Amino acid sequence: TVGQKGNNADRIYAAYSVYKGKAALSAHPVPATFSKVDSGGVKVKRQGYIMLSFSPCVGERKYDWQRKQVFALSVTEVGSLLTLGPNSSVDFFHDPAIQTSNAGQVRKGLSIKANSEGTGYFFSINVANNITKVNERFTVPVTSAEFAVMRTSFSSVLPHIMGWDRYSYQPPVLKEENSV
Amino acid sequence: TVGQKGNNADRIYAAYSVYKGKAALSAHPVPATFSKVDSGGVKVKRQGYIMLSFSPCVGERKYDWQRKQVFALSVTEVGSLLTLGPNSSVDFFHDPAIQTSNAGQVRKGLSIKANSEGTGYFFSINVANNITKVNERFTVPVTSAEFAVMRTSFSSVLPHIMGWDRYSYQPPVLKEENSV
Amino acid sequence: TVGQKGNNADRIYAAYSVYKGKAALSAHPVPATFSKVDSGGVKVKRQGYIMLSFSPCVGERKYDWQRKQVFALSVTEVGSLLTLGPNSSVDFFHDPAIQTSNAGQVRKGLSIKANSEGTGYFFSINVANNITKVNERFTVPVTSAEFAVMRTSFSSVLPHIMGWDRYSYQPPVLKEENSV
Amino acid sequence: TVGQKGNNADRIYAAYSVYKGKAALSAHPVPATFSKVDSGGVKVKRQGYIMLSFSPCVGERKYDWQRKQVFALSVTEVGSLLTLGPNSSVDFFHDPAIQTSNAGQVRKGLSIKANSEGTGYFFSINVANNITKVNERFTVPVTSAEFAVMRTSFSSVLPHIMGWDRYSYQPPVLKEENSV
Repeated sequence: TVGQKGNNADRIYAAYSVYKGKAALSAHPVPATFSKVDSGGVKVKRQGYIMLSFSPCVGERKYDWQRKQVFALSVTEVGSLLTLGPNSSVDFFHDPAIQTSNAGQVRKGLSIKANSEGTGYFFSINVANNITKVNERFTVPVTSAEFAVMRTSFSSVLPHIMGWDRYSYQPPVLKEENSV
Repeated sequence: TVGQKGNNADRIYAAYSVYKGKAALSAHPVPATFSKVDSGGVKVKRQGYIMLSFSPCVGERKYDWQRKQVFALSVTEVGSLLTLGPNSSVDFFHDPAIQTSNAGQVRKGLSIKANSEGTGYFFSINVANNITKVNERFTVPVTSAEFAVMRTSFSSVLPHIMGWDRYSYQPPVLKEENSV
Repeated sequence: TVGQKGNNADRIYAAYSVYKGKAALSAHPVPATFSKVDSGGVKVKRQGYIMLSFSPCVGERKYDWQRKQVFALSVTEVGSLLTLGPNSSVDFFHDPAIQTSNAGQVRKGLSIKANSEGTGYFFSINVANNITKVNERFTVPVTSAEFAVMRTSFSSVLPHIMGWDRYSYQPPVLKEENSV
Repeated sequence: TVGQKGNNADRIYAAYSVYKGKAALSAHPVPATFSKVDSGGVKVKRQGYIMLSFSPCVGERKYDWQRKQVFALSVTEVGSLLTLGPNSSVDFFHDPAIQTSNAGQVRKGLSIKANSEGTGYFFSINVANNITKVNERFTVPVTSAEFAVMRTSFSSVLPHIMGWDRYSYQPPVLKEENSV
């Protein structure tokens, strides 16, 4: 039961999306990946993340997901989002081409900033691509209620993207009554 | 294992209910629905909700559930309930006939309002039905303890009505040790 | 998979216990009970509770569980415990013989009271039994850290004693792509 | 399904690690152990814990885990960590040789102390070993975001190290409709 490669029969696709006047924002979790351990079992090879996808509004209730820009929130970046106060803001910067020959050519920024009434946050993604010369910015206003859904669902799925939810699927460790 | 149509053998019916002098309020989660994806697996077709049902008290410890009025709290409306402060209130409005020929004929409102001592909330449903000419209002006072149960249980079931609890049932994604 | 009577092979016994100078306190969850529904599946017959057991200290690290007194915290009473502020207190009263011929003869009270420094709570059980003429009181001081364990574990198990954790074990509801 | 000895096929290895200038800190949960009960089922023999491992930085991005020092946070010590305020600190002391002939010879201390800006905590382990004459101290600064990940993941896994997560794996308790 401990893992499969390439079998999509059990895959689940579920996102939380908010659709606003200028752009839409969609969030879904991507699980950790595992590798086998010689003595049996698996260990986390790479932690998962929460993928945030932004797309522009191109007509009434129409969003162009071909033009989407994405930002992969790491476990610790999710921690930042969870502790964000009602009047605070946070910025993350990623180089998606890091450790390749294109390092430094693409700069992605995600900004989460409280609005002035304290009733929600602006989520903005900014992508400056020095190779394609494309500079793109999408902003989605998120209400307190929508942010509460994100906080609650991201908290609940954090153990999953860390690989910690699988601890509960191990059978109980049995010891004899008079052993230590 | 990924889905069944019409098989009730595994269905669970569990509600949280509070019974007060004038009316009763009962809450239970309704899961997301899924559709198959050609490449395998399932995706969320429609998000679930938390169904709130109100019924009038018609005698000592007797409530008439035939006369119930219901309000389906969406994922984001649950987010509003979760962030409600001890002295705050929130109102939701639904048109159950939206996108049909009867749109605008029935207006449902759900109000959650802090009581004046800060010791709980009044949950009220108001239904104005222009077709049947029925106007109905049920109010149930909910204590802080009962609201804490709602907050805790609604938080725990939010991933379920979003479809996110199923992420944990996917087998771990295995990658070879020296792959990227 | 949906239920068994009398099969103990899968039963789990796990408690959280604190041992203090005069008495010990042990807490464990008791699940909801279910009954079959004619159309298939099960519904909650009676909600579960969290059982608190108090026993007196009768020697160095010795506690007499034969003399224990117990108090079954209902779902809503757990809600009260979860919302207790650092300087607050709450009292619950039970008549364990309610709706029998001995109603009113035994009075149990559970008190959770903040200590004067705000560093924890006193948990006291008081049992006045008019049939046996026994009047017993056990008090256990609980630190903030121990109370945090109770709050976290009681929150996590609340869906279980309500029967709501079983919602996640239902297979996903599948609908055809072009159905409503 | 209720337990195995020595079968590693289902074991999971997942940690949350932070790597800083002088040392690294890694945390992973260790489950409760169980023993069989004559009447069927299992009970908790010993509660689990969260293992914190510290190792020194010995070069650019190199940490020497052979020299690691470990501290096993008990269920109640995790409770302390969960309630730590943004400007507070807590100290734990362990004697790893307790109840052996070397009792009192090794003293381990774990300190979690808020930094002066309120933007995180210093986690320090101090080991004074009177047998080997080794005195070792490792300190890792942990940001608010990293601490939020610890709080969220430790809360989620607390029922697992207490053995309480297994309550949800018991089949529902079925009672006949007209029984009490």
